[in-house]
Amino acid sequence: MLEKYSVRTDLALEEKERFESDNVEIAGVVLEEEYDEKREMRITKVLIETENGAKSMGKPVGSYLTLEAPNLAVPDEDYHREISEKLAGYIRILVENKCAGRRPAGRLVNNEGRKDGAVHGNEVGHKDKSARGNAKLEEMDVSVLVVGLGNRQVTPDALGPYVADNLCVTRHIVKEYGKYAMGMEHAKLVSAIVPGVMGQTGMETMEIVKGIVEETKPDVVVAIDALAARNSKRLNRTIQVADTGIHPGSGVGNHRNGLTEESLGVPVIGIGVPTVVDAATIVNDTMENLIDALETSDVLKGVGDVLRTYNSAEKYELVKELISPHLNGMFVTPKDEDELVKQISYTISEALNMVFTNA
Amino acid sequence: MLEKYSVRTDLALEEKERFESDNVEIAGVVLEEEYDEKREMRITKVLIETENGAKSMGKPVGSYLTLEAPNLAVPDEDYHREISEKLAGYIRILVENKCAGRRPAGRLVNNEGRKDGAVHGNEVGHKDKSARGNAKLEEMDVSVLVVGLGNRQVTPDALGPYVADNLCVTRHIVKEYGKYAMGMEHAKLVSAIVPGVMGQTGMETMEIVKGIVEETKPDVVVAIDALAARNSKRLNRTIQVADTGIHPGSGVGNHRNGLTEESLGVPVIGIGVPTVVDAATIVNDTMENLIDALETSDVLKGVGDVLRTYNSAEKYELVKELISPHLNGMFVTPKDEDELVKQISYTISEALNMVFTNA
Amino acid sequence: MLEKYSVRTDLALEEKERFESDNVEIAGVVLEEEYDEKREMRITKVLIETENGAKSMGKPVGSYLTLEAPNLAVPDEDYHREISEKLAGYIRILVENKCAGRRPAGRLVNNEGRKDGAVHGNEVGHKDKSARGNAKLEEMDVSVLVVGLGNRQVTPDALGPYVADNLCVTRHIVKEYGKYAMGMEHAKLVSAIVPGVMGQTGMETMEIVKGIVEETKPDVVVAIDALAARNSKRLNRTIQVADTGIHPGSGVGNHRNGLTEESLGVPVIGIGVPTVVDAATIVNDTMENLIDALETSDVLKGVGDVLRTYNSAEKYELVKELISPHLNGMFVTPKDEDELVKQISYTISEALNMVFTNA
Amino acid sequence: MLEKYSVRTDLALEEKERFESDNVEIAGVVLEEEYDEKREMRITKVLIETENGAKSMGKPVGSYLTLEAPNLAVPDEDYHREISEKLAGYIRILVENKCAGRRPAGRLVNNEGRKDGAVHGNEVGHKDKSARGNAKLEEMDVSVLVVGLGNRQVTPDALGPYVADNLCVTRHIVKEYGKYAMGMEHAKLVSAIVPGVMGQTGMETMEIVKGIVEETKPDVVVAIDALAARNSKRLNRTIQVADTGIHPGSGVGNHRNGLTEESLGVPVIGIGVPTVVDAATIVNDTMENLIDALETSDVLKGVGDVLRTYNSAEKYELVKELISPHLNGMFVTPKDEDELVKQISYTISEALNMVFTNA
Repeated sequence: MLEKYSVRTDLALEEKERFESDNVEIAGVVLEEEYDEKREMRITKVLIETENGAKSMGKPVGSYLTLEAPNLAVPDEDYHREISEKLAGYIRILVENKCAGRRPAGRLVNNEGRKDGAVHGNEVGHKDKSARGNAKLEEMDVSVLVVGLGNRQVTPDALGPYVADNLCVTRHIVKEYGKYAMGMEHAKLVSAIVPGVMGQTGMETMEIVKGIVEETKPDVVVAIDALAARNSKRLNRTIQVADTGIHPGSGVGNHRNGLTEESLGVPVIGIGVPTVVDAATIVNDTMENLIDALETSDVLKGVGDVLRTYNSAEKYELVKELISPHLNGMFVTPKDEDELVKQISYTISEALNMVFTNA
Repeated sequence: MLEKYSVRTDLALEEKERFESDNVEIAGVVLEEEYDEKREMRITKVLIETENGAKSMGKPVGSYLTLEAPNLAVPDEDYHREISEKLAGYIRILVENKCAGRRPAGRLVNNEGRKDGAVHGNEVGHKDKSARGNAKLEEMDVSVLVVGLGNRQVTPDALGPYVADNLCVTRHIVKEYGKYAMGMEHAKLVSAIVPGVMGQTGMETMEIVKGIVEETKPDVVVAIDALAARNSKRLNRTIQVADTGIHPGSGVGNHRNGLTEESLGVPVIGIGVPTVVDAATIVNDTMENLIDALETSDVLKGVGDVLRTYNSAEKYELVKELISPHLNGMFVTPKDEDELVKQISYTISEALNMVFTNA
Repeated sequence: MLEKYSVRTDLALEEKERFESDNVEIAGVVLEEEYDEKREMRITKVLIETENGAKSMGKPVGSYLTLEAPNLAVPDEDYHREISEKLAGYIRILVENKCAGRRPAGRLVNNEGRKDGAVHGNEVGHKDKSARGNAKLEEMDVSVLVVGLGNRQVTPDALGPYVADNLCVTRHIVKEYGKYAMGMEHAKLVSAIVPGVMGQTGMETMEIVKGIVEETKPDVVVAIDALAARNSKRLNRTIQVADTGIHPGSGVGNHRNGLTEESLGVPVIGIGVPTVVDAATIVNDTMENLIDALETSDVLKGVGDVLRTYNSAEKYELVKELISPHLNGMFVTPKDEDELVKQISYTISEALNMVFTNA
Repeated sequence: MLEKYSVRTDLALEEKERFESDNVEIAGVVLEEEYDEKREMRITKVLIETENGAKSMGKPVGSYLTLEAPNLAVPDEDYHREISEKLAGYIRILVENKCAGRRPAGRLVNNEGRKDGAVHGNEVGHKDKSARGNAKLEEMDVSVLVVGLGNRQVTPDALGPYVADNLCVTRHIVKEYGKYAMGMEHAKLVSAIVPGVMGQTGMETMEIVKGIVEETKPDVVVAIDALAARNSKRLNRTIQVADTGIHPGSGVGNHRNGLTEESLGVPVIGIGVPTVVDAATIVNDTMENLIDALETSDVLKGVGDVLRTYNSAEKYELVKELISPHLNGMFVTPKDEDELVKQISYTISEALNMVFTNA
């Protein structure tokens, strides 16, 4: 309920944490954690397995992998390369799972006429799990459209466009010269689009991307977006990879329509980095901190206890009162966000280049 | 034939001039001229009326209006506003002609479902001239997609993106709040896209635009592009408006597929400004100048006469010899191109805003 | 004391308000207010007249004019032109006051050798008030250096660079062709520099500007900077003009050395627009709001009363506890900051152009 | 004489070639060549040793090293790293020669007060060659100011600003924390400035840089600039390093005052890359090619012979006739200049980072 004044998060991990603080187990949601001590990197996988779980989490059924690495904010090339490799590994598996069975290898380049709907049939897509497990990306012909979401002019929203800038696009070259000429046994066709935001285009991002997908028929879309987090310590230090695409209300720019397999007709992998915290979140946190702080004061101890007994509706009313009306539409972001977003966007584009260009 | 080493021009006006210098009348091509002395503005209309004319000119049947105004290169706001108004007038007529009869007024917003192909049927489009003549843009519901062609990173190719930047897009607002809420009797829905160039996207511009057109179904596309001229004095001082769209080989970036009514399924108005001259053109001009210069020398007079008798094939061979191989892919552009292209792009976007937003 | 965790403001107006909320009169500080109902524009002048006042306010002796206009955030060209004119009026008076008596008119262009220190002598500068009052900018030869402070890459810090972009610089033209050739009776030489920030240059901004001032000897420096406000409703709606220059700790980028007449040797006019609020400020406000809110609760009324009795040191400790450590170095800014900062920077550069180029 | 209509070059190498084509030996100018077959890299050193040589070459006494590598235009990271290393080697030697003996090691950080003129005295600088030869950069305290000349907004002129963008500046860090804290035995203080061009600042670049040099007292200035070449095949494939700084008439933007030891008071190393050819050069080349071409024609053979006998003045008149007046102020540049200039600027900034940050 608190979300109404948008103490929102786009990280499944943080959505899960919210329940944990309430000591609630969520049916249909599984959490897996792994810590890479050497690299100080925490990997968390949130699996939403049932519709019930999806409802509780406010996110669709699917897997949400979060990679947290405090040093992502440090300009250390070697470290970033290691993160790119780790990330590339996860993306590769997702692409293999999503694309295996979608089309027989070798038919990619020749059969891209607009009539071959059959080849793209979703009926093969999701069900034939047996056929997939074994497919290796190296042995697959895959065509991917990378979508760089967000507004290049707004620093913390420029993540997507920056990733697209550093991407090796190859589709036009393979189309022109063929995959063998490029020394590839199995073609990877990479295309990219920076669709802009609605205030610039007058169109929903979804409309633009859907049109391009229907015209160019990629096997999979990888959409990159800047996200909002609840916890400011995660900003620019966290990468989320979701096999469910990009969802309404996500991101700095708040897309109204998601980019999902349902809306686009092809699987969508969503990659996001939190770059802002909603100003309202800060207010909410302050109140929570205050309640804790009151505990330690002899005089005021009782107040914290009273506030703690408030139910959600009462808390909502209280926090609503505390928020200055002018904070709506404002966000919190680090002063050196420009450097940070450039750095992490490069790490992501390198990961994608590893997956699709050197494969 | 000279075009083979690309002494090329995207201006129909210059194509026409080429014949004039040979004192040749081209059947099926009509030229109309008008000079506005006060504003030192020359307006030339090249009408290509027959397929024969089209063949001679290397451009499709249609009308090509060229507005030449030396002062376009001067930063005079009032003058630029006058040019914007003049330009707006021509664009308005083209849109009225192209869109009249395409759809009954008032059905725009409600009937944009993907099934209503009938409404967009081209059968009405070009033939039913009777229905059109009287239509006034103010009384029409029109949806326009402005396409800013070119590469924002390359100064003389940034015209299209810059025009899109300054455009008032309204489609999302009308869609959300309705045309009456906006105080419009007849809705003008403006959307815009900067598709990028093939080296960035891996896709033909045509593929991207076609996808978006099929998804968002505008009534007309207005495509803006930087052009190549033959005559350097026309750079940044000339605006061409063509009712035939954008054609292969046009522009600084050399699109391989045109944006035309044939390829996109809706009428396309092409607006272009020459911002570069091919380096090869300079070489060609130098030789022509030399031939003239030789005339005036007693000793060398004969040489000019001899060269003048060369036929096209012979001239081609000679010029080919004179071109340094490294000049391929090079262009000539003014040193202050950045200022000039910003200025003229603003003049064009203002014209479009006059047509579609204040109508 | 609260400033220690930087609930800071660069607006003298807000510094003054802080005392008002405590119902304290500050000796040596005078406030003048004026409201322009038609334009919904509030003009406040904070005059710090004594060193005691300066100490209380944390800002040097001088005048701080604040222009608040909610509609600055609306893209209305006519309205912005009115603000530019109003602003131009204030800047003109400041320049007249600062530069009158500094040098005899007519000696500007010829006497710019590096040896003529006498002409720039500050001894005339501040004392000879009698000589000044009557001077009109039209009748003065004035040379101004506009300094666009901040980081062009960080949206809310780009105000200064954007203002410099739109400025009409004339110094090189007058130097080359003379003032008469330009149709000026009295020359206004405008130069501009965007010095960058320390992370880009390795130098203090003050070092760069001081070097340029000593080399090019302007009569006055106008420095533009993005500011931090306490109240988010003032963001991008407020312009502060100070005759004391730019001070340490000001701005988004936190310059360590001020740009003042003391440090540069010539008068400095500081123009600033608040574009961010420190994240810590939000926390502080939340607590203040909470204390007020507790009042209305029967159970909790006492708590507010208790908190209200806290002295500064106690309050400081409490708020320090409430701030999440990761909020340091973070700021709050509107989502459409890019548009807003472009718009207001244009309004300021137009004001400067009115003062110096059309004079 | 031909230079009058600016068939100009900023490359000493090309200036030398011009004489070679006339089979003239230039007294006081020595040429050394070296070819690295593996890397297809040609290194040419033009040593102008006497004032007479300087007069003939139109460039001051000094050494001009040119590194030509066709593959600089190819995006091969490993190859570019090798070029960076090669380049770093040359720059290191120049800095050692220029700075040795200028100041005793170890006094850098503490003695930067504005009064210590003695330490910077040029009397030590150039004469005491014995003291220099042995100095190693690793054992020296050196403070360098990198100046990124040119206009960031004009693609082929953006080389200097791009190099500055990728530079590791360290001066502010060493100043704040000391060299030992940074793990350096001998401090390298790197600062950088992008001064802009006269049309933006109203000031001569020389004025801006001189002011900053006098304020911050670097031991050496490294100035980066985009150059004009005569031969289009050298564009973006050639790096010139000169120990004489940057000279009037150089560069795309045509600085009127040089950046030299004479004007700035500290040694200046100039690094340049040709990114444009003057349009006039193309015309000149075309005529030269034509004269050669005429040879092969039986009828026209005599004409070539006649033209060949023209002296400079006659040739000048002829070429002047051939140049279209509108070509003035135009330049020739590759279509993918944006990519090329970014790539080569990165290679140069890496070389500088190798010299100053990892030393």
